[in-house]
Amino acid sequence: MNKHISEQFDADLESARSQLMEMGGLVERQVREACAAVLDQREELAQGVRDAEPTVNRFEVNLDDHCVQTIALRQPTASDLRMMISVLKTSTDLERMGDEANRIAKMALALSGAEYPEDRYADVRILADRVIDMVSAALDSFARMDAAVARSVIRADKAVDDGYRQVLKRLVGDMQSRAEAVERSLNILWVARALERIGDHAKNISEYALYLVHGEDVRHSRNSGVLDDEAATASAAPRTD
Amino acid sequence: MNKHISEQFDADLESARSQLMEMGGLVERQVREACAAVLDQREELAQGVRDAEPTVNRFEVNLDDHCVQTIALRQPTASDLRMMISVLKTSTDLERMGDEANRIAKMALALSGAEYPEDRYADVRILADRVIDMVSAALDSFARMDAAVARSVIRADKAVDDGYRQVLKRLVGDMQSRAEAVERSLNILWVARALERIGDHAKNISEYALYLVHGEDVRHSRNSGVLDDEAATASAAPRTD
Repeated sequence: MNKHISEQFDADLESARSQLMEMGGLVERQVREACAAVLDQREELAQGVRDAEPTVNRFEVNLDDHCVQTIALRQPTASDLRMMISVLKTSTDLERMGDEANRIAKMALALSGAEYPEDRYADVRILADRVIDMVSAALDSFARMDAAVARSVIRADKAVDDGYRQVLKRLVGDMQSRAEAVERSLNILWVARALERIGDHAKNISEYALYLVHGEDVRHSRNSGVLDDEAATASAAPRTD
Repeated sequence: MNKHISEQFDADLESARSQLMEMGGLVERQVREACAAVLDQREELAQGVRDAEPTVNRFEVNLDDHCVQTIALRQPTASDLRMMISVLKTSTDLERMGDEANRIAKMALALSGAEYPEDRYADVRILADRVIDMVSAALDSFARMDAAVARSVIRADKAVDDGYRQVLKRLVGDMQSRAEAVERSLNILWVARALERIGDHAKNISEYALYLVHGEDVRHSRNSGVLDDEAATASAAPRTD
């Protein structure tokens, strides 16, 4: 690739990355506000989360177009190509994260008439805080190509899965002991479930980052040298459902 | 692109497509067998579904590598490039479909001691049949680049969402009327939920096919001319959760 083409590619790549980070910031806000809408009974935030959906979708479509055109036009080298493809994949994960935030926002509306529990959803709140941190760190790991941060996100997914399992167990108990709690508990369960999925998408994004840094595909690997033992165990742990 | 390069690209593309179809066939079988494991109490099938997971994962990683190398080496034109990228995206949806089949298989094991209902899970069975048809048609629409089949898959997603909502409503009723039904009902709910997600992934695959045929991005479009009105309404319909 001559210098001219290479400079053009760098500019296109920079544009893709900055669009991606803007999209990421928007989705991160959706997740935060959806959680606040449910957990702090701030239903007024739910509509904003839902209103952001078309913008998130537009980001994904535009990023796809931009990446495809850049690849076709600039014909990047293998490593630059991998970067473009990781941007494409990350935008898909972000869009699906936005979908999950939307589901949480819907639950905030469904729960708006329900009794607010005395513990202010303590266990779901812990889960939400973990997931919000994960999303923020995942975007960070991708933006800065930081392998250490990426690894911490992949490890954090285990704590999120554990937290989800605890919430699930508690809710099953509630449903068994009080028939009138079934509907409300299920709505909370959907929130916890969406959070667990958001954690999965954050993990995917950090896996792309790690792949770009190390050139090694850590997806589906149980004993990859890239991850330390703890993380390898985490990714090999059975799923909750 | 000169004739020589173009022929090499065609061979690489053909190889990617045939790997993708092989992966699709494997995942389709996982979905079928996971459903039979739950609905016909054939728990012996569940382990096979779970055992196939590493193979599905390997397909995804290998296809990614193959596509990236082909793009870097052959530098395809924009339309060929879109095809390669659709293969990449489809393999991700197939892998996640396989994950959902695994979740269903896990539920078959969890339910193996439970009472087999008199109606043999009639409503979940209808949902499963619809989803299995969708998966098969989605792969078909991609393999043959058949826009009519792709559109039928996108329309079918509405019926799947409706079916899921009906199962959910019925299960909530069961849980409210019998505390001892809560755990079993939740396990069935996870099955229905996984089926609904598999339907979403099938729809994604058909959207990629439609995009390749028409060159138009129908994802997130509510009033696209590519889809007829019914389908546009379906994709705009609110999600269940």
